[in-house]
Amino acid sequence: MRLKATISYDGTQFSGYQVQPGERTVQLELEKVLMKMHKGERVHVTASGRTDARVHASGQVIHFDTSLVIPTDSYQKALNVQLPSDIRVLSVEQVTDDFHARYSVAGKRYRYIWDCSKIQSPFRRFYTVETRGIRPNVEAMREAAQLIIGTHDFTCFCAANTSVVDKVRTVHSLNLEWIGDELHMTIAGNGFLYNMVRIIAGTLWEVGVARREVQTVAEAIEAQDRSKAGKTAPAHGLYLEEVFY
Amino acid sequence: MRLKATISYDGTQFSGYQVQPGERTVQLELEKVLMKMHKGERVHVTASGRTDARVHASGQVIHFDTSLVIPTDSYQKALNVQLPSDIRVLSVEQVTDDFHARYSVAGKRYRYIWDCSKIQSPFRRFYTVETRGIRPNVEAMREAAQLIIGTHDFTCFCAANTSVVDKVRTVHSLNLEWIGDELHMTIAGNGFLYNMVRIIAGTLWEVGVARREVQTVAEAIEAQDRSKAGKTAPAHGLYLEEVFY
Repeated sequence: MRLKATISYDGTQFSGYQVQPGERTVQLELEKVLMKMHKGERVHVTASGRTDARVHASGQVIHFDTSLVIPTDSYQKALNVQLPSDIRVLSVEQVTDDFHARYSVAGKRYRYIWDCSKIQSPFRRFYTVETRGIRPNVEAMREAAQLIIGTHDFTCFCAANTSVVDKVRTVHSLNLEWIGDELHMTIAGNGFLYNMVRIIAGTLWEVGVARREVQTVAEAIEAQDRSKAGKTAPAHGLYLEEVFY
Repeated sequence: MRLKATISYDGTQFSGYQVQPGERTVQLELEKVLMKMHKGERVHVTASGRTDARVHASGQVIHFDTSLVIPTDSYQKALNVQLPSDIRVLSVEQVTDDFHARYSVAGKRYRYIWDCSKIQSPFRRFYTVETRGIRPNVEAMREAAQLIIGTHDFTCFCAANTSVVDKVRTVHSLNLEWIGDELHMTIAGNGFLYNMVRIIAGTLWEVGVARREVQTVAEAIEAQDRSKAGKTAPAHGLYLEEVFY
């Protein structure tokens, strides 16, 4: 029986999602608990995609195959009882065997949060990127965002060390809104290249603080050149919020 | 010159406020930075009172004497640059030499937060106490709160291992309100005994989940008997929010 689960995790104390020898990762913690539930049998967990160290998820999706016949509600509770409290299983549902957490993805939505208050609340230090009171020009950032929305070759927003060949993706929406002193960027699209959201966040930030002109964003996309885009924004401001199937 | 500073800290990674040999405490971190600023000279920091391990502060007040002549704004910035990010200095002001962070206190306000959502967000695990979806009867808790407001001998709400003799205090206000799925208790008074807020929170919780009758709260106060009150609620739900002078 194949199960699909939606999970949330605080990325602060993880070396990312994927298993790496000697590191604490989300996948490792999930598989440890499932192995216990399956009396020592290894259960492989597949996620919609990896997240890096310190990146958070409020709606990551995973799938795995299980031999246990337990109602999905009880399955969810059993997982939450045994998992560390920085991973929570929000829902579990049975899916057909052709569902695949990664290959079936139709799109994703991410959130990026800057804390623009003068003094960052210590309670938000792992969950937002502090700007030491700098408040960017959001109108300029929105103008630049309009240049990113649509179907483009996004080579300029992709970390150089990647093996993906086809870098054409579609960004469906890219919004910026203030929530109190926090600036939230939300971006949805059919797929994202490695570090793409963080490089877009870093580039829009540079536009917002007048370190680059709006038009340079169109030029960077056109040039398909990573060096023409902005810096990669820090990991701990990023949340994988929803995966669409 | 005497300075008064309002500070905020995330109590998660501290063994409380007060210096203890071999432990990471808020006072130690403050005094380490001040010692550096004073070229090796020890500067003693006095707080409005101690907070326990994992207890947070959004408005703790401290004072210290300094020989440095720096504008208070720059003093605040210098402290924040050198302090770890789980302590932030919100403001610094010069006060007269007769101001004393502890002895001059006229009152304090604390906040206690329960997260009553079915699944606690991993991002809130250090900052709220999870109830696994249990939602208490807040009307009953408010009735019990009315019995606590006023001037009483609060021996029943004081940890047994205390050396304080006079246990008469005045609680000015004690409110309960929902903020989303979180239940927030705020309590203000002229002074609080050791563990008093956490024992009140624990006792009101027991009323809310029908583990005790409202009237038992009056009886516990009357009896001046710690064993007649409820359990001490966990530390990480508690915030020192404001100190009045």
